[in-house]
Amino acid sequence: MCGIVGIVAKSNVNQTIFDALTVLQHRGQDAGGMVTCEADRFFMRKDNGLVNEVFRTRHMKRLLGNMGIGHVRYPTAGSSSSAEAQPFYVNAPYGIALAHNGNLTNTADLREQMRKENLRHINTTSDSEVLLNILAHELQQIGKLVPTADDIFTAVKAVHKRCTGGYAVVAVITGYGIVAFRDPHGIRPLVYGQRETADGLEYMVASESVALDISGFTLVRDIEPGEAIFISQEGEVRTLQCAESAQLHPCLFEYVYLARPDSIIDEINVYKSRMRMGVKLAEKVVRERPDHDIDVIIPIPDTSRTSALEMAHHLGVKFREGFIKNRYIGRTFIMPGQTQRAKSVRRKLNPIELEFKDRVVMLVDDSIVRGTTSKQIVQMARQMGAKKVYFASAAPAVRYPNVYGIDMPSVTELIAHGRTDDEVGEEIGADWMLYQDLDDLKDCLLAGNSSLKGFDASVFDGQYITGDIDDAYLQRIDDERNDSAKGGSKKSTTNQNADLHATIS
Amino acid sequence: MCGIVGIVAKSNVNQTIFDALTVLQHRGQDAGGMVTCEADRFFMRKDNGLVNEVFRTRHMKRLLGNMGIGHVRYPTAGSSSSAEAQPFYVNAPYGIALAHNGNLTNTADLREQMRKENLRHINTTSDSEVLLNILAHELQQIGKLVPTADDIFTAVKAVHKRCTGGYAVVAVITGYGIVAFRDPHGIRPLVYGQRETADGLEYMVASESVALDISGFTLVRDIEPGEAIFISQEGEVRTLQCAESAQLHPCLFEYVYLARPDSIIDEINVYKSRMRMGVKLAEKVVRERPDHDIDVIIPIPDTSRTSALEMAHHLGVKFREGFIKNRYIGRTFIMPGQTQRAKSVRRKLNPIELEFKDRVVMLVDDSIVRGTTSKQIVQMARQMGAKKVYFASAAPAVRYPNVYGIDMPSVTELIAHGRTDDEVGEEIGADWMLYQDLDDLKDCLLAGNSSLKGFDASVFDGQYITGDIDDAYLQRIDDERNDSAKGGSKKSTTNQNADLHATIS
Amino acid sequence: MCGIVGIVAKSNVNQTIFDALTVLQHRGQDAGGMVTCEADRFFMRKDNGLVNEVFRTRHMKRLLGNMGIGHVRYPTAGSSSSAEAQPFYVNAPYGIALAHNGNLTNTADLREQMRKENLRHINTTSDSEVLLNILAHELQQIGKLVPTADDIFTAVKAVHKRCTGGYAVVAVITGYGIVAFRDPHGIRPLVYGQRETADGLEYMVASESVALDISGFTLVRDIEPGEAIFISQEGEVRTLQCAESAQLHPCLFEYVYLARPDSIIDEINVYKSRMRMGVKLAEKVVRERPDHDIDVIIPIPDTSRTSALEMAHHLGVKFREGFIKNRYIGRTFIMPGQTQRAKSVRRKLNPIELEFKDRVVMLVDDSIVRGTTSKQIVQMARQMGAKKVYFASAAPAVRYPNVYGIDMPSVTELIAHGRTDDEVGEEIGADWMLYQDLDDLKDCLLAGNSSLKGFDASVFDGQYITGDIDDAYLQRIDDERNDSAKGGSKKSTTNQNADLHATIS
Amino acid sequence: MCGIVGIVAKSNVNQTIFDALTVLQHRGQDAGGMVTCEADRFFMRKDNGLVNEVFRTRHMKRLLGNMGIGHVRYPTAGSSSSAEAQPFYVNAPYGIALAHNGNLTNTADLREQMRKENLRHINTTSDSEVLLNILAHELQQIGKLVPTADDIFTAVKAVHKRCTGGYAVVAVITGYGIVAFRDPHGIRPLVYGQRETADGLEYMVASESVALDISGFTLVRDIEPGEAIFISQEGEVRTLQCAESAQLHPCLFEYVYLARPDSIIDEINVYKSRMRMGVKLAEKVVRERPDHDIDVIIPIPDTSRTSALEMAHHLGVKFREGFIKNRYIGRTFIMPGQTQRAKSVRRKLNPIELEFKDRVVMLVDDSIVRGTTSKQIVQMARQMGAKKVYFASAAPAVRYPNVYGIDMPSVTELIAHGRTDDEVGEEIGADWMLYQDLDDLKDCLLAGNSSLKGFDASVFDGQYITGDIDDAYLQRIDDERNDSAKGGSKKSTTNQNADLHATIS
Repeated sequence: MCGIVGIVAKSNVNQTIFDALTVLQHRGQDAGGMVTCEADRFFMRKDNGLVNEVFRTRHMKRLLGNMGIGHVRYPTAGSSSSAEAQPFYVNAPYGIALAHNGNLTNTADLREQMRKENLRHINTTSDSEVLLNILAHELQQIGKLVPTADDIFTAVKAVHKRCTGGYAVVAVITGYGIVAFRDPHGIRPLVYGQRETADGLEYMVASESVALDISGFTLVRDIEPGEAIFISQEGEVRTLQCAESAQLHPCLFEYVYLARPDSIIDEINVYKSRMRMGVKLAEKVVRERPDHDIDVIIPIPDTSRTSALEMAHHLGVKFREGFIKNRYIGRTFIMPGQTQRAKSVRRKLNPIELEFKDRVVMLVDDSIVRGTTSKQIVQMARQMGAKKVYFASAAPAVRYPNVYGIDMPSVTELIAHGRTDDEVGEEIGADWMLYQDLDDLKDCLLAGNSSLKGFDASVFDGQYITGDIDDAYLQRIDDERNDSAKGGSKKSTTNQNADLHATIS
Repeated sequence: MCGIVGIVAKSNVNQTIFDALTVLQHRGQDAGGMVTCEADRFFMRKDNGLVNEVFRTRHMKRLLGNMGIGHVRYPTAGSSSSAEAQPFYVNAPYGIALAHNGNLTNTADLREQMRKENLRHINTTSDSEVLLNILAHELQQIGKLVPTADDIFTAVKAVHKRCTGGYAVVAVITGYGIVAFRDPHGIRPLVYGQRETADGLEYMVASESVALDISGFTLVRDIEPGEAIFISQEGEVRTLQCAESAQLHPCLFEYVYLARPDSIIDEINVYKSRMRMGVKLAEKVVRERPDHDIDVIIPIPDTSRTSALEMAHHLGVKFREGFIKNRYIGRTFIMPGQTQRAKSVRRKLNPIELEFKDRVVMLVDDSIVRGTTSKQIVQMARQMGAKKVYFASAAPAVRYPNVYGIDMPSVTELIAHGRTDDEVGEEIGADWMLYQDLDDLKDCLLAGNSSLKGFDASVFDGQYITGDIDDAYLQRIDDERNDSAKGGSKKSTTNQNADLHATIS
Repeated sequence: MCGIVGIVAKSNVNQTIFDALTVLQHRGQDAGGMVTCEADRFFMRKDNGLVNEVFRTRHMKRLLGNMGIGHVRYPTAGSSSSAEAQPFYVNAPYGIALAHNGNLTNTADLREQMRKENLRHINTTSDSEVLLNILAHELQQIGKLVPTADDIFTAVKAVHKRCTGGYAVVAVITGYGIVAFRDPHGIRPLVYGQRETADGLEYMVASESVALDISGFTLVRDIEPGEAIFISQEGEVRTLQCAESAQLHPCLFEYVYLARPDSIIDEINVYKSRMRMGVKLAEKVVRERPDHDIDVIIPIPDTSRTSALEMAHHLGVKFREGFIKNRYIGRTFIMPGQTQRAKSVRRKLNPIELEFKDRVVMLVDDSIVRGTTSKQIVQMARQMGAKKVYFASAAPAVRYPNVYGIDMPSVTELIAHGRTDDEVGEEIGADWMLYQDLDDLKDCLLAGNSSLKGFDASVFDGQYITGDIDDAYLQRIDDERNDSAKGGSKKSTTNQNADLHATIS
Repeated sequence: MCGIVGIVAKSNVNQTIFDALTVLQHRGQDAGGMVTCEADRFFMRKDNGLVNEVFRTRHMKRLLGNMGIGHVRYPTAGSSSSAEAQPFYVNAPYGIALAHNGNLTNTADLREQMRKENLRHINTTSDSEVLLNILAHELQQIGKLVPTADDIFTAVKAVHKRCTGGYAVVAVITGYGIVAFRDPHGIRPLVYGQRETADGLEYMVASESVALDISGFTLVRDIEPGEAIFISQEGEVRTLQCAESAQLHPCLFEYVYLARPDSIIDEINVYKSRMRMGVKLAEKVVRERPDHDIDVIIPIPDTSRTSALEMAHHLGVKFREGFIKNRYIGRTFIMPGQTQRAKSVRRKLNPIELEFKDRVVMLVDDSIVRGTTSKQIVQMARQMGAKKVYFASAAPAVRYPNVYGIDMPSVTELIAHGRTDDEVGEEIGADWMLYQDLDDLKDCLLAGNSSLKGFDASVFDGQYITGDIDDAYLQRIDDERNDSAKGGSKKSTTNQNADLHATIS
């Protein structure tokens, strides 16, 4: 997962991009990057690390220009090298830099086309570099000295035809403007907003509306699935539907976990949708165990707090912060001659004994992926003296891999893969395992935007909306994930110098 | 404010000190330091930055030994230089390294004594370096080749006689052991605990009990005011009351804001005390406005959440997370030719509009110091459409400077200095200003430990327990604070190379 | 001025490129870079600094592959940014990285063509980026999936047609091989050599033969003017004359100062040519002043030592090392409130008094450019008690700007610009100014390679061999140099993030 | 070996100390350090690296004060850690920082005394830290609030009584001044000079007179063996003979190799002494082989150039620079899966073939220690086609360890240990081995200063002037050297954090 932003303004955009990236930091804490454009010159800075670490004063001073894009990256399998930090850049035609959130599902074919048909060199394993080169190639085919908005939209149409998968993209074209677009299913989010200044209107596109809020932009609307927006360097805005058959199927996981609660995605208030998830969980409790004996509801901080509070409220049960998060927790160092100690969840969460002692506690998390943390948390609750430990997940059981840009472990590592809900409960040691029902989760979103026709719920139900995912594909990415897990660190160092596009300082 | 830790163990202590410092990080995010001792050799690492940044793998590998101390520092006026990071070290006698939380109130006199009578050079402005040299001088006076626990206690007694103020101290003596002690009023907290291992018992002293929790130590008890504990390198523990008239007067601010909720200080559960503060606020609401019209109670995250939740519960009013904290927010960069933009609280907190819209909101914070943030938050609540904005502070009005180790602005910058509670409300723009009563706050602690005879409540009532604080003293520190504020950055750079005790790598 | 190297080997080339760059370091101490190629992947590292500083172990470990190129850069006007470090890279077609020594004289036109006709974005002010894009564009026009040596030579022919100036170039094409070529006048040097290994022959092209020596390669021959060499990844070598009318006119300054004495350039032993310069100087002394009163000949270390020794030998005069070079001399720091002290030549050279005291000394330098150093040296000789101070220059008077890749000050800063030889002597305070005659200098080279038909002697005689240099051109570069001198540091920082091709680590 | 400097001036001394250290850099390239003193505050910076690398602008800006000392360190066995960089510091009494060139021969005893009798903790293995603590302890015994020059001399006298070995020392006492002294045999050099300024005289003490030259100080005289000089902060100078029986025995190796040619040590011009060594070598050639067939004399650059030139001149034989030094040569990187290649001398020196081809060459080096380099050089000369290769050493055969501060390999690694001169010749493959005679070498110095009564010639004749060196001592240091060679890198990292006195930035 990643966060992207693009701005066309009336003065230097570096600080605003920086601020936008910090509030999108939850979407990716692995790497950050920024490209700004002044006259016909690009300035770039990207590296591994938090936004705060990547951009120091000396870099910011050089990131000049009234137009630019930014990116934060989540560590996905095999991409932990700084060489694969975004944005990527090509110099023909025009000079284009691109940043991308999502994942293409036909990368292997596209990569081959690039090399054989388009003679373009792809130097990393990143599908974003592929995507950029397709966009670039299509623009080169058109071959105008000064491309119009329509030329750019024509190129985006070709991109939609060639690429499958989930993607929200922003690109800056030297001297001309910024183009952003969203895949025909709108799996990954993208919004745009505007800000009035003395010199005229300024525009921002971003993964989430919070990026607009922090700098005083107001949300105009979501970019539609398949739609592209072009903002010229002068500040003219054009949008066009560039896909032949586009229909919104937003990713459910954005609402469950990925997005910030204060964001509004596809007209749905994320915070409110999470409150509804809590209500739905409360209703399921009443449905399943009308005479439940829950003494206290305790969230696993931070995401589940919203759902848990509303769940407690609806059940009329006490809500308590029974776990304190160690916000600054750091590495474990392996001293010479010492074997690695178990990575204890205790390093991340400290329980407050009196909230557990002799009580029946309902723990609430947003979702369960591997289940190893959940298991340790349940143990910890028992050690604190809980009479019984129940466990609720605001999301249904995660049973299938994600292929649209969310990094998840191999399917065999998913605790719910091949297990019933109750078997998961047993596995993590909970006395009661309460998963949200998938239909209930969908209802939480439909309550916010009733016009939605469908969702990407693939991690829950194994239905892949792009229609091109077969068992062979899933097997292949699973193999890659396992390989990369084994050779992980080696691969990432090897790739380090592969980046021909990053900027040092 | 600072956090300290000291450990005598059966194997290398560096990881445990590192972990302890990360959970004490809330007590100081400005600098960190560690000294370990192996045989007759000290290893030291200290620098500005978070614990995670100061200690990299290369440092940890060299911090050898089964005994050591650590420190995290809060940026206090005029001490932002890495040269003043702790621990400090002297090589005569024995080799002693010391770390300290608190503030001496007779530093100027002591500094003069050191120079003129004891011929000891103090190279920084830190009172911790003074304190270390007094301890060292007293031990040198005794002059034993191998000091006993009693010799060390004799030296601590002399320290208590010479020093006034609030201090919790831990020191390591090369080859002998660790000594820790607390000022005769016990203003700053200090606990100790133990952990069983295959090789025998291990001991930790720390500012807060959470430091024990994370590494599986169990709390034995608080160090008494005036008491010293000596843990020999071999693991023998001795304690002795070293002050002539000691009486516990813990700092109220620890419970209000400084300490972690999951800590237990002087037998009082901090989390529970904050819940009681919420109850007391609810009672005051009912007392003052039995027919209040509060629609929703919204905490200013994170500290006030505990109080606010309980306050809401007791009033039967909705509790909602109306502000989302931007956890990763970073610097503002000043581009050439650009004037500094206002540091907006909006960069730190993002409001969720629907929780404010058309409602009467009661905002709850732990305390109000300068009031500038509170004022902006009230404004933000109004912009979000709140009908009325009330403001509650879990602590009474802060009207006086702190001289025992909490860094606060000049007294003239305290919003409540010279203002009634209502006038503060007006100043921040609140429709109702609700301060905790001081007696109520004290009751919240007495409910946890009824044996307490008094408190350091000086920031609220101007009563200084050490008896040596007069107007001249307060005027002098206020002048220093103002000077340092003016010449701040210059002073801090100037001091950078003044440190003769830090370790590079 | 710069140094370049390219290698196709049977195992990793990084160490060999590193070694080659260190012995070419005298050609450029400002920045260094390397690109290696493994399978279809490039690895790049470049930054400001000495080779030793730019390439650390962590970079070297990642510079994988049996084929690669390297570059060291001299600080030329306006290019001190790390963004303009070489090699440069484009990804279409194939992925090509290029490094270049020299200077194009029609860059402005080429830059415009690139943008308008070829739609290629040039992001820096470097003519090397322009040159790379021309080569790339010509290869793209051919459009083969797998380019043959002939295709590549066809592209080089087009480069020769489009570009004027002096250039020695090496480029690596992903997956195919290395191509190197030299401008049709052969102004800048380029040689190639081979090394036998168990796995077959390995090849190196380099600016100077010393780069071959250090790694055990043997010199095969110089690349001819206008000629190109293509070494396939598999180790097949093809060469072809690619210019329509090529004739060797090597740069005289290479022999005077730029090249290492132990190099052989265009079949001339540089060391021997410098010895001959000393002989010619001696002959001129005898010619001009048969009864000269020279007591001792003292070189200005290091370059002139060879000429001075031979001059002394031929005159039968004592040769002495009267100046000791401070090899480690560093920066001057400007403390706050202090004005810049004069940059004294005394910081670089320390005189040995007894070699000057009461003697008539003949100082020998390789050449005189600005003359400020020479002036200070003459003064220093007098302060040491010299009776008379004579000054010999192994090169003729430098009176015109260089446009083929040697960085020189503005023409108005050249001490000999508009001055006779004697006037220069007066200006630097010498009692006798002895410049080498231009014909003598040419003879020194002809004695080594009698087949030479001409030279680039433009800095001495103002004749520009490429025929495209007019007063307007000279005026323009002079303006640029002055601008950049004025705004120097600012420009260089501004460009820092302009590099889209460098690699971080 | 090391270089030291101390200055009392009328304005900030940091730049002057920096400059002095750069011209003393040849005495130690491993680490550098500086302490300055302003009012009662010390500023320190020290780290591994060249002076240029250790002191960056940010450090220099903070090294304030008109008084200070500096140090450069040669890597001696077991001291490669930055923790052992100098100066060292103690805070009692007064605050004293000290830097030292040389080696104490009774360190083990002194270390024990410090710990047991004086209760002082020595945290490193450096004898300089011991020396500082002895000086400090002696000053503390005197116990004055304001120490006079006489008090300080009294302390130096005690130092001379307690310490044996070779040492030149400079120390700064906070607020009072600088003291420098030299061991009673004057084994290591120390000079002082002065500079006139508008504000009065400024003083510098330094290892070599070149440090005076670069900043315009004039040499006053050498510090006598056993003598101490005290320069008060106000600029008053006092000197006193502090040893009971002092007699000058300067180290011969300073003249042979260690010192810069342009230095004057104990009134002997080093450059001139090296010329005399060349004359003596020529005389020995004539003596031994009156009909020698030497065609050319070639120095191994750089030190031997002076001797070789004079030798050639006296023999009437051609002098030629047959080897070019690779000044920028760097590391060898070990790629994964690759074994270490032999460290070839070819990386450091490149031969010019035509100077060797078919000639009888006499190579001249300053001295031969291990002989491995000499052996490779002889081979290289043969590969270049030399008919015969002769080898001359300006110093006699090195057969014994140095215990006075010159780092040398274990005695068993000395090629001349247990070998006659001819056997060394055979071992390195020379057709004729010509060692300087020890008496000739002594004559070279006596010619400069006829008042000398003796020398430290221990590496040549095994006579140790301090009288306390027995076989057991030599065996012990040999063991330590071997241990440290084996565990070298490990030891150095382990010590890294042992430094409690270095300053970060």
